Amino acid sequence: MMMMEYRRIKDQDKDGDVVEDDIEGLHGKPLSGVSVNNMASFGASSAYKSKWKLKSIVTLALTLLTSSQAILIVWSKRAGKYEYSVTTANFSVEALKCALSLAALGRIWKNEGVTEDNKLSTTWDEVSVYPIPAALYLVKNLLQYYIFAYVDAPGYQILKNLNIISTGVLYRIILKKKLSEIQWAAFILLCAGCTTAQLDPSSDHVLQTPFQGWAMAIVMALLSGFAGVYTEAIIKKRPSRNINVQNFWLYVFGMAFNAVAIFVQDFDAVINKGFFHGYSLITTCMILNHALSGIAVSMVMKYADNIVKVYSTSVAMLLTAVVSVFLFGFHLSLAFFLGSTVVSVSIYLHSIGKL
Amino acid sequence: MMMMEYRRIKDQDKDGDVVEDDIEGLHGKPLSGVSVNNMASFGASSAYKSKWKLKSIVTLALTLLTSSQAILIVWSKRAGKYEYSVTTANFSVEALKCALSLAALGRIWKNEGVTEDNKLSTTWDEVSVYPIPAALYLVKNLLQYYIFAYVDAPGYQILKNLNIISTGVLYRIILKKKLSEIQWAAFILLCAGCTTAQLDPSSDHVLQTPFQGWAMAIVMALLSGFAGVYTEAIIKKRPSRNINVQNFWLYVFGMAFNAVAIFVQDFDAVINKGFFHGYSLITTCMILNHALSGIAVSMVMKYADNIVKVYSTSVAMLLTAVVSVFLFGFHLSLAFFLGSTVVSVSIYLHSIGKL
Repeated sequence: MMMMEYRRIKDQDKDGDVVEDDIEGLHGKPLSGVSVNNMASFGASSAYKSKWKLKSIVTLALTLLTSSQAILIVWSKRAGKYEYSVTTANFSVEALKCALSLAALGRIWKNEGVTEDNKLSTTWDEVSVYPIPAALYLVKNLLQYYIFAYVDAPGYQILKNLNIISTGVLYRIILKKKLSEIQWAAFILLCAGCTTAQLDPSSDHVLQTPFQGWAMAIVMALLSGFAGVYTEAIIKKRPSRNINVQNFWLYVFGMAFNAVAIFVQDFDAVINKGFFHGYSLITTCMILNHALSGIAVSMVMKYADNIVKVYSTSVAMLLTAVVSVFLFGFHLSLAFFLGSTVVSVSIYLHSIGKL
Repeated sequence: MMMMEYRRIKDQDKDGDVVEDDIEGLHGKPLSGVSVNNMASFGASSAYKSKWKLKSIVTLALTLLTSSQAILIVWSKRAGKYEYSVTTANFSVEALKCALSLAALGRIWKNEGVTEDNKLSTTWDEVSVYPIPAALYLVKNLLQYYIFAYVDAPGYQILKNLNIISTGVLYRIILKKKLSEIQWAAFILLCAGCTTAQLDPSSDHVLQTPFQGWAMAIVMALLSGFAGVYTEAIIKKRPSRNINVQNFWLYVFGMAFNAVAIFVQDFDAVINKGFFHGYSLITTCMILNHALSGIAVSMVMKYADNIVKVYSTSVAMLLTAVVSVFLFGFHLSLAFFLGSTVVSVSIYLHSIGKL
């Protein structure tokens, strides 16, 4: 039901509003039917360009932030063990994202005034779906603790690439958007290429993963894919709604679910040592980076889609490896070169395979 | 010059002969222009089908023979070291191919009589190009002895995948046949996929190959690619010429060049221990297999092309690995699964990417 509504609104948005705005910009000149069409298509193409530009910027931001995120993790591991509680860090990320969304909204309200699209108050109908992605991520994170009984950490990194396939399949099923045959082939290649790039001599262990490990990995991939696709559906359902309002509601529920996680897992540590115990400069950098990446993900959902997100994070993974060569003296393996080649061909095929 | 002639002849063959034959088969019924066209296209499609069938059979034969060739090599290695001289074995392969071609010709002469297309005698103009592929292969085989100063055997197996790229490039340049963008992407994937499937923990050594090793590997890839593409050009230059006559001349020069190799390398061993010294049952099987594979390659050149040959031998490599699991208890690595996935997607893309 919601999906149908979403697509109806989106079609209106594409064919109606943009073109009308541009015709209004022509200072009331008398126009023949033909030139209206010409101007309309000119207007649409200019709107297309600015949309394309926005899409490129948010995608680039997501790629760079995700890539530096991985580098910060390597850096923090080199600096020693985590001494802070992960749950308070996750809560801080959500709180920071909330604060940044409110700050952005404050500026918008000052400049444009409060409108129907950027007001914070909302209906039950709009807000009721926002807790769902946060709940899905919580379940996924809980499962993460159990899967390590069956798979080691490098094996888990390999199995995480199942996310790529699950996102593609759920994107098709839930958002009902079609990918061409070539784009499907490209998506399989993206998954194979990313996995190849991450191969190391111990990777073959993953083939000995017991059935329970595979089952949990697949369930986690489906949960994570579903959360991503569902977030896109929520955000795109109301295209004219300000993204900062949508983010605010997403992150409020993120804060709520992470507060529950603090109580369950780290209640004693927080009471005894304080909320921010063990935070270092690098912890603060990681929280800031995670918050900005989270906002970039929302932006990609608003102005692009989950497919772009998957490509963006895959390229970030490759970028991290290349940067690590310079920063940490890592070596690039032959498998990395082969995987990068396959990922590059996949990106090329995705772009030429557009329906 | 030769290429232009070849293509002219080929076009005649495609558009003229086949259709004419089929119209003659209509028992002189009066036909309107429209139905002549219908019948002609029906005839062409039936000729297309029988050509497609022939193409499939020779490709399947090449795949199975190449795959069992690799299995015989593993088997012979398990049985112990080679005790025969490799040059006499190579000569025997060429001699056997020659004999098989003559036997096939004998049967054809008996059934159809000697015609312009199946007579063995030939002009200087026709025969002068036949020594070239044999000479190229000889140079490549000589280089093979020197490259091992810079690369180990598993590294050489990895570098041999450069053949795929060189064959594609030379096929485009020399035969002037176009591949679509998708087919080029598929070809890069085939090379990356085959290499990935062959990865093992020692493969990263290949990245430390010195410049001379890379240069020789590239020269060898170009020689082997050029020999393959040139053979296709020779065979397709005269489409109506019987393939067994063409094979006979190819293999006669193969024998001649291998005779030179015997004199240079194994003259003493042959004089002292005899020509067939050290031949076992498995040596005989390998010679028979090589001879049949060689004939299958010629058939693929006649009825398909070098691109089909490359795909066929790549699939054979994967098939060998799977069969080795059952025969020799080998393990399949994660890299093998990923590489096979990429090769499969490459085959799919090649087929949907036809111009």
